[in-house]
Formats: sequence, structure tokens, C-alpha cells
Amino acid sequence: MPLSLSRLLIGRPVSNKEAQGHKLGIFSGLPAMGLDGLGSASYGPEAALTILAGTGTAGLAYIGPITWVILALLAILWFSYWQTIKAYPNNGGSYIVAKDNLGINAGLLAAAALMVDYMLNVAVGISAGIGALTSAIPELHAYTLYLCPTVLAVLTVLNLRGTREAGLAWSLPTYIFILTLGFIIAWGVFKAITTGGHPHPVVSPPETHQAVTAVSLWLLLRAFASGCSAMTGVEAVSNGISAFRDPPVKHARATLSAIVLILGLLLLGIAHLAAAYGISAMDQSKDGYQSVLSQLVKAVYGRGWFYDLTITSVLAVLCLSANTSFVDFPRMCRLVARDGFLPRGFAVPGRRLVCSVGILFLTLGSGGLLVAFDGITDRLIPLFAIGAFLSFTMSQSGMAAHWWRAQRKTSGTDARPLSATRGRAKLAINGGGAVATGIALGIILIAKFTDGAWLTIIIIPCTVLLLKIVRHYYDQDDRQLRWETQRSIDLRDHGKPVALVPIKRWDRLSRNAVEYALRLTPDLIALHATTLDGPEAEREETSLKQEWRKFVEEPACEAGLPAPRLLLMPSHFRSVTAPFLKGIEHIQKRLPGRPVMIVLPELVEGRWWGYMMHTHRERRLRAQLLRYGGKRIAVVSVPWQLKPQTPRQGLAQEEPSEPVDKACRHGIRLNTQP
Amino acid sequence: MPLSLSRLLIGRPVSNKEAQGHKLGIFSGLPAMGLDGLGSASYGPEAALTILAGTGTAGLAYIGPITWVILALLAILWFSYWQTIKAYPNNGGSYIVAKDNLGINAGLLAAAALMVDYMLNVAVGISAGIGALTSAIPELHAYTLYLCPTVLAVLTVLNLRGTREAGLAWSLPTYIFILTLGFIIAWGVFKAITTGGHPHPVVSPPETHQAVTAVSLWLLLRAFASGCSAMTGVEAVSNGISAFRDPPVKHARATLSAIVLILGLLLLGIAHLAAAYGISAMDQSKDGYQSVLSQLVKAVYGRGWFYDLTITSVLAVLCLSANTSFVDFPRMCRLVARDGFLPRGFAVPGRRLVCSVGILFLTLGSGGLLVAFDGITDRLIPLFAIGAFLSFTMSQSGMAAHWWRAQRKTSGTDARPLSATRGRAKLAINGGGAVATGIALGIILIAKFTDGAWLTIIIIPCTVLLLKIVRHYYDQDDRQLRWETQRSIDLRDHGKPVALVPIKRWDRLSRNAVEYALRLTPDLIALHATTLDGPEAEREETSLKQEWRKFVEEPACEAGLPAPRLLLMPSHFRSVTAPFLKGIEHIQKRLPGRPVMIVLPELVEGRWWGYMMHTHRERRLRAQLLRYGGKRIAVVSVPWQLKPQTPRQGLAQEEPSEPVDKACRHGIRLNTQP
Repeated sequence: MPLSLSRLLIGRPVSNKEAQGHKLGIFSGLPAMGLDGLGSASYGPEAALTILAGTGTAGLAYIGPITWVILALLAILWFSYWQTIKAYPNNGGSYIVAKDNLGINAGLLAAAALMVDYMLNVAVGISAGIGALTSAIPELHAYTLYLCPTVLAVLTVLNLRGTREAGLAWSLPTYIFILTLGFIIAWGVFKAITTGGHPHPVVSPPETHQAVTAVSLWLLLRAFASGCSAMTGVEAVSNGISAFRDPPVKHARATLSAIVLILGLLLLGIAHLAAAYGISAMDQSKDGYQSVLSQLVKAVYGRGWFYDLTITSVLAVLCLSANTSFVDFPRMCRLVARDGFLPRGFAVPGRRLVCSVGILFLTLGSGGLLVAFDGITDRLIPLFAIGAFLSFTMSQSGMAAHWWRAQRKTSGTDARPLSATRGRAKLAINGGGAVATGIALGIILIAKFTDGAWLTIIIIPCTVLLLKIVRHYYDQDDRQLRWETQRSIDLRDHGKPVALVPIKRWDRLSRNAVEYALRLTPDLIALHATTLDGPEAEREETSLKQEWRKFVEEPACEAGLPAPRLLLMPSHFRSVTAPFLKGIEHIQKRLPGRPVMIVLPELVEGRWWGYMMHTHRERRLRAQLLRYGGKRIAVVSVPWQLKPQTPRQGLAQEEPSEPVDKACRHGIRLNTQP
Repeated sequence: MPLSLSRLLIGRPVSNKEAQGHKLGIFSGLPAMGLDGLGSASYGPEAALTILAGTGTAGLAYIGPITWVILALLAILWFSYWQTIKAYPNNGGSYIVAKDNLGINAGLLAAAALMVDYMLNVAVGISAGIGALTSAIPELHAYTLYLCPTVLAVLTVLNLRGTREAGLAWSLPTYIFILTLGFIIAWGVFKAITTGGHPHPVVSPPETHQAVTAVSLWLLLRAFASGCSAMTGVEAVSNGISAFRDPPVKHARATLSAIVLILGLLLLGIAHLAAAYGISAMDQSKDGYQSVLSQLVKAVYGRGWFYDLTITSVLAVLCLSANTSFVDFPRMCRLVARDGFLPRGFAVPGRRLVCSVGILFLTLGSGGLLVAFDGITDRLIPLFAIGAFLSFTMSQSGMAAHWWRAQRKTSGTDARPLSATRGRAKLAINGGGAVATGIALGIILIAKFTDGAWLTIIIIPCTVLLLKIVRHYYDQDDRQLRWETQRSIDLRDHGKPVALVPIKRWDRLSRNAVEYALRLTPDLIALHATTLDGPEAEREETSLKQEWRKFVEEPACEAGLPAPRLLLMPSHFRSVTAPFLKGIEHIQKRLPGRPVMIVLPELVEGRWWGYMMHTHRERRLRAQLLRYGGKRIAVVSVPWQLKPQTPRQGLAQEEPSEPVDKACRHGIRLNTQP
């Protein structure tokens, strides 16, 4: 098996027809689409608490109200996406919604925001997951920057294998995550209620820092802006409706509802218990770091196997929440590439029905982010929420425009006319969503500007520009290939080309090429480039000339063909291409207007290590000839398969299967053709 | 300029004729060939002192006698190589000498030893150089592992540019090294004599450690074995005689003598002063490390600009001593590759007359060694001397066999008969050299076995085995290409192939390919692989069929050609190759025995970034077709050059230069050929 390594890693090729089998239901959709959203529960509250940490215990009281605001926003998003799913049952990602309703520029803006968002999601998911791990095993803290790329590599390989495997692989941790965390919250709330709001922690969280700043509106806004990262990933379902089983709208809506409900409960519970137990955020870049969830589980239930299980599932869910991006990023890139705004490679589905280029691009981008920000979650968060909220806003505005237009032509050509009331309600919901997410975006932008949000503000427009440049490139390409003059083939000039065959020495390889060339055209010139100097070169030339006369010229003349010529050309610069370009020039001077066809004998080596044994000059030669050889040339590769010499299959037995002999067995009837 | 980056780094291509101008004289040969030998002066004595360090001041007294033994060996080597240079004026490297006189296995053993030796020389030179640097600037000590690869990269680029530039670039540091170190030694010896052997150091060297082991014969043998690394590099001249100006033998001998003389004086002076000033070796892996030379210069002359100059030249010479390997390693690999024991890539001279593959291979190997041994000189030394002394021994034994044979046929056919006495003297010198270096090799092997020499003992035979496997591979290849049956071309089966043209859509690219294919053969089948499903695919197919009929079939029939057919083939696995293999099968079933020619239209993009914009399916397709397509196929690449759309050169002006139009300008006379 020549491709066994990639087969082992990536799996067997998957047929188009198998695509249907890869579809998701609610139970499998929740992990596949919801990991990002649910995983946010562990870094969102922590991000808000990090901002509040400077105020000591005073600020901790505000985590509750901030969370309620976030939940209100979440509810608005739920309503909005509920509608989007119905209106765009074929993947209503922000890109499509914005492009369809607000024009291509808005679409590209949404696409760029999402691309940045997806990359950050991978980086944040992995860094927060490793944060959970190093909370549990502090000895691993020093290896943060080695652990992150490892997780990224594993995710990449799993995703190159395709969505379904991925979905199955993470269902278990997702449900363990929901169950264990749900139990901890329920148990903690029960204890808090029974103790009158002041439960006694099993393991006390580290002392809260002394207040170094006062609580201010500005601080609360910043905490809200950080906390908004808890909402990222909610849009995943609307981007991937086509991945759901029939009827997709129903399954997608149910999955969305489940995600939003669980996320809301988790956020509320975490905020409530953090305030009740006095748990604050710690600095991930310092030794002894404990994530908020780790402190929370310890405080409510203590260390033990349950702690280990919970933290393991948090680690798994966080690392795997990156998976949402791995599902959505390539899918969106494919849509953008189909519109010509990304290189075509992004639109080519790989062997396993996923777009490999998109996956690898995502890996590179998020890997770069992890390295650039040292794998510290808190440094990535400020950049994160912007992309997500910009895409929320674009999507909601697009939907609002959609309903606005639909309402104006209610009695028009629209297939399913809307009643004025229902239409207005839909417009209000999506319009309200757009305004709410827009305001949140503004707050995040202002509050996080100096913390890194400025970077996002530079990157997103640059990405839009790049996308437009790509499209411009393809437009230019297409203009060259498109028709302006005649479209039918032109057979007025229909002369045979002159064949130019490079000959290193007279062996089977050369003979094979010469014979093939003589099938195609009677005019043949062989080219021998001499790289040697002195007597050695002369001896070689003389013997080659003799062989040529005897083994080529004479048989050709006997068969009534013009005598193939042998051209010797010195190569002073040991360049592979130069003598050929000279040879082409030579032919074009002597036989003006005749096209030239370079016939390259090519040794084909089936074994991967055999590849290293050859210089592969003919590949470079072909590429350079195609590039510099002018318009009227073509390059013909005539293969000669090298066979490994196994004992049971010696050369003697293979001899008869050589091209010419085989043809003879089939009779020479072939020779008599029009 | 498309290749401007590589041109900037590597320089313009150099013609074969310029080779003569790159030759060395004595003055330029001393740095080019002697850097390795001279550089050894700084790590050889230090390596011996490292072993003696454990014995405190007691062992320091033995550095003198050990050095004298080393000098005696050095003198023997001088005599031996003096003869070798004359006997092998065309590069008498150990490989050639051993191969010619002792057979191919001995030659390969010498080659393997040398390959290991050269790699270690690069690693040791760089690590010792960085050791000198960190002695002078202790702050840099922590960056040892970053500095080493940087130096390696700079050396690689300089050497890819070619030998002469390299020689010029390091002449200055070499001569400064010799002059400053010579001055220090002379001044130190003068002070030692005037103070009765007990000079007062300007800057006291660090306290010698307390004795932890007693002086024993075993310890002295180990010190000698380590000290032998001071002799490495002496063979460089005999490997590179052809690099010298005419008369090469005279220049090579003079250079060899100069190197040996200077090296001997340096070794003697360093040993003498180390004992007089009580300077011992320190541990390079510890902070505060000071190389022996650094301590010596400080003790004799103190710190100041002269110290800085000396240490800078030591640094430069040590780092550049690696250059000897960069000159010799690719040259030897080329000889070995020409004999078929290394992949052919090693024998291809690059644009600048140097063998790039060999240089890059050396860089990789020595880089690996630097990383594996943490860039610590002392850990590399035990492996180092083995390769050098094995190759010395092979070379000397080979020369002894040479004289032995020459003597036996003194009156025979030999061009220059030897007098019996002179012949016996030569035999004695080389035989004595072989015995002496053989004994030294044995001592080094035993004394250094557990310190890492065992590794060399494993690596060298493995390398020999690999070399033989490579040769076996080429022998098998050659057996397939060599003649056993008829050598002249066979024109009995001479039928035209059937052309198979992949068509994505009907555009200029496709038209170009179809037109070219129809020049070569009248039988043409176009293949459209459908990757889409559903109504979209059907619509596409219908329109393509119509276009095909109108724009291809009709004109072809009018011109009296058989109607080119359009074949639609679904591609369930989105594989690029599968439909073509099926197409080939289809043709071979319907038209048995007819060869198939796949005509691939290829977009040629001149700009490097444009490369990323295309999927390059046709390259993968071509490679896979050549590999799996069977024996009777060939692949024709028909290029279509994409032109960047500059304002002054619009599409409208370029239109007439299209292939067909250009041909029309040349007249249709082309159409009338035999």
C-alpha cells in the first residue's frame, strides 16, 4: 500500500453517496454544534471575573447582574437564530445572510469576522482546556506551550478524517461535562440555600486579592465585554443546518434551544456560586494557577474522583470546543471560495468529504495565535468577542433587511407571503437582535480597545481586502480564458510539431521516448546536453553519435521516415533548461512556425524511498519549459516504470510485457489507420 | 526577476569555464584547507586538559609529554601525506586511495569514516567557537543552542555561494588568529623563561580543582585519545589538491607543510604555557565557563583590546574551521555518488559549481549533532577522533599497499619506475604511518568507548551498508535499462495513439488542448468528470454537450477528421485520477492495443504568489497517470500562459499573439508536410 500512512491517519476515501450517512440528529448535533457554545461557559464567567478581580470582594457582587445582562442578550440571540434557521434552511451563516440581504461587501465583512472568530475560538478553546488541565496537575504548567500544539495536531487529524467520527468521539465528554457540572451547580445551590447564602467551602478557594481599584461603570463595562465571550459559538447551528438529518429545520431548532438553555443555566449557576463562595479569577501566566471552574468544584464538592472526572470533561470539552470551528471554518471557506473570494483549493473536498485546505489553514492560523499569545486564554479573550459580535450583528442586520424587504412585497411574487403582523414581529425580533448585538459590539470595542481589540480592527478589514484581491485575480484570469472571439476549434493550421527528445545515453528509456515521438510526428531531433569538458566528453559524444546512426537513423530511413537528427549542445551553466530553450530557438529559426513538442522520457519509481534516488531533473525541466518555452510548445512525458526486483518476478519474465512487444502480440493491425 | 531571493543569497550562476579562476594558491590555500587543522589547536589541548582536570595540579605536568607524542604522530602524518599528494595529484582522499589500493569495501569504510568525521568537524568547530565567544561574553552562555544554528546557517549560505568567496572571507581571521596566538605564545614563553619557569599571570586563571583521581596510565591514555582531536583536519589538503593552482602538487605540499608547522608550534606553545601558568579545563555546560585559550590569553597579556581581538579571531577560525568540511564533504560525496554509492543528486553541481545537495546534507547532519549533544564540545570530541583516525589509517594503509605493489612491478609497465631504495623508503613511511595511526585509533577506541565512541562504531558500518544498498539499487535500475535484446528502434507498430483530453468547461484552455491534440492524432476523446450531483450537474452536462457538438465535432467533420467524442464520467470519490484510469480502460477495451495519450491543458502562472491560486490538479494527475496508467500511455502538457494584466499591455493587444493566430501569420504552408 503506497499511501498507507495517510490512510492510517486520515482513513479510507469516502464516496459522495455516503454523504447522507454523515448527518446529525439532536443527540449527536449537541456535541458537534454546541461544544463551542457550551465550552464558553468555562471561560466566559472567568473572563468577567478576571476584570473584577482587581476590586477584591466588592466587585464579586456584580458578577450576578452582569450575567443577567448576558443572559438577556443570549435570549435575544436565541429568538433571532430561531428565525434565521427557518429562513435559511441551507446553511444561513452570517456570510450568506449578509451577502444576500446587504450586498457582497457586508457579506465579506461577516466572512472576515467569522474567519478571525473561528481561529480565535480554536486558540481560546485549547488554551482554556490546557488551563483546566494545569489547574488539576500543576506540574504540567511549565509545558503549556508544548501541550497546546499537541492538542491542535490531534484535532487536525481527527477533523481531516471527517465530521461524523469527530461527532461521535466527543459526545461522551460533552454529556459528562453537562451532567457533572450540572450536578455541582445543583449541589452548590442546594448547599447555599440551606446555609442561608453562606455555604462553607469543602476546599477553600485561594484568598481574594486586596482591592486595588474601585468598582466603576467603566470596570463593569469591561467585565461585561469580557463576559460576552460566553456567548460565542451560539451561531454554530445556523451555519451548519445542512449537516442535520431530515427535517433539518426542526432538528436544528431543537439543538439550538438545547444549547442555549443549558448554556444559560450553566452561566447563571457559575455566577451565583462564584459570588456565594467568594471565588475569583487567578493569573494563568503564574504558577499555581487554578481556573474558576476548578476552584468551584473543589469548593462545592472537594477533591477526589468526582473532581478529576469533572475537570477531565472540562478539559475535553474545551479542547474539543475548537471542533466547532473545525467543522464550520472549512465549510464557510468553501462557500467563499466558490464565489471566487478565496483560492480554489479551499473549495476542493478531500478524500473524506471535508475541505482539507481549510482545515490546515485553520490549524496554521490558530497555531500562530497560540504561539503569539503564549497560550494564555486571558490575552486572547479581548480579540475574541469582537469577531463573534461583528458576525452576530451582520447576520441580524441581514435578517432584518430580509424581513423588511419581504414585508414590502408581501403580496408580491414571494412564494410564502407573510401576514403583516407576523412579518413585523420577525422584523422586530431580528432588528432588536441587530441593535442589541450592535450595542454590545460597541461596548466590547471601546472597553477592550487597548487590550488587543485594536488588532482585530486591523485584521478584519485587511482580510476583506485580501478576499477582494483574490476575486480580482480570478476575474482577470477568467477574462483571459473567456470568449471574445471565435469559440470553435481552428483546424486551418494543423501541421505536426517537431519533436525534441533529450537523450542522456542510448538506453531503453531513450528508445522508448524516441519510438513514442515517432508515432506522433515524423520530424524528430534528439538533444544531448554535454556537461563534461575534455576528452571524456568527446569519447561520450562519439559513441552516442555512432549509436544514433546505427540504432535510430538507419531503421527510420528504412521505414521511409526522414532521418532523425542528433544535436549536441554544450551546457556551460549546467542548467537543465538552457540547452532546450536554445534547441527550441534553433528549430523555430530553421522551421519557422512549426510548433515544438519536447518528449521527456521519465523514470517512474513506485516506492517512496526510490523517489530520493533520482534527481527528478525532468520535472523541473518540464515546469521551466512550460513557463519559458513560449506559446507553441507542448511537453510529452513518456513513462518507464521501474520494477522492484522481487525474486518471483525477475526481469526475464517481464521482458515480453514491454510496450512494443505487447503491441505486437495485439497484431500490427494498429498500423493501418486513417 | 523571479528568482531574486535565491540569487541574492546564492549569487549568479557560474559557468564551467570560470572554474579555473576559483583555484587556490598557498596564501589562499592555508585558510581554505588549513582552518580545520589550525582550529584544532584550540580544542585539542583543551580536550586533553579536560581529562587531566580531575587530577588537579598533578596531572597538569603530563600535558607536555602527551603533546610531544601527538607531535610525533603529526610528523609521521606530514611525511605520509607529503607522499600521498605526489602519488595522487587528482585528489587523493582516503576514499580514492583506499578504493584504488585496498578494494571497494575499504574505500567505502574510509568514505563512511570521513563522512562522520566531516559532520562532527562542523559540529565541533561551531560548538568550540561558540565556547570561545561565551568565554568572552558570559551573558551569551544561555543562548548557546541558538547561536550554533545561526552560525551553521551562515556557513551554509556562504558555501552555497562557492569556494573562492569562502576562501577570501576567512583569510583575514585565519592570519589574525595565527599572528595573535603566535604573539601570545612567544610573549608567554619569554616571560616564563625570564621568571625561571614560574611566570606571574596578569589575570589569574580560576583555581584548579582539588585532585579527585590519581594519575594513572589509563587516565593518560584517555587524555592522549582526547588530545588526538588536535590532529583532525590535516588530511584536508590531500583531499583537495585539484583546488590548487598549477602546479598543484607543489602548492599543495607547501600548504600542507605550513599547516603542520604552524599547528605543531601552536600545540607545543599552548601545552607549555598551560603547565607553566597552571591553566586547566572547565566544564562548558556550566555557567562561568572559560575556554583554555581564553584563560591563557588573560594570564599572559590580561584583558583589553588584544584579548578581544584574539578571542574574536579564535571564534572566527573555529566557526570557520567547519568550512574545511563544507569544501571537502560535498566533493567526496560527489566522488562516491559518481561511483553509484550515493543518490545521484550528490553528483549534480549546482549553479555556483558546488554540490548543493552535499552541502545541505552536511548542514542537516551536523545540525542534528549540535542539537543532540546540546552544542557542548566536550561531548562531541569522543566521537570525533575515531572517524579522523580511521580515515588516516585507511589512507596510509592504502598508500603502503600502493608502494608495495609498485615495488613488486618496479621494472614492469609502471610509467615511472621506482628505485628499490626509494620505493622501500616510501613503503616504510606510509607503512609506519598506518601502524602509528592504527595504534592511535586503537587507543582512542578503547579509551573513549564508553564516552560515545561506541556510537561511531555503530554508525560507520551502518553508513557502509547504506552506501552498498544505494549501489545495489542503481545496479538493479541499470539492469532494467541496459540492453539484453535489440537496441534499435522498432517501427513495426507505429500507430497513432488515441488522445484523451480532460475538459472542465469549454474555454480557451480546452480549445488550445484540443487543437494541439488534433495535430498529433485524429482520434480524440474528451473526458468530463462530473463531481456534482443533482440538477446542477445535469444543466452543466447539457450545455457542455451542445458546445462540444457545435464548436468541436462540426469543424472537425468539416475538416475530414473523425468526430471527436465527449465522454461524461461521474467521479464518486472526487478523485482526480480515477475517471482517467477508467477512461484509459474504456479506450483499451474498445480499441485494443492502441496507446493512449492524455493531453492536459495547463495554466502557467509566472508569479510565485499566483501559484497558490490554483489547485494544480493537473500536476498530481500527471504524476499519478504516469505511475498507474500502465505502459502504453503518455501525458502531454499543453501550456497556456496567464499574463498579468498591466495597463499598458491589455488583452486586446495580446490577442493576435495566440498560438493559432501566430501560426496563421507564418502562413499555412506548415499544413503541407510529408
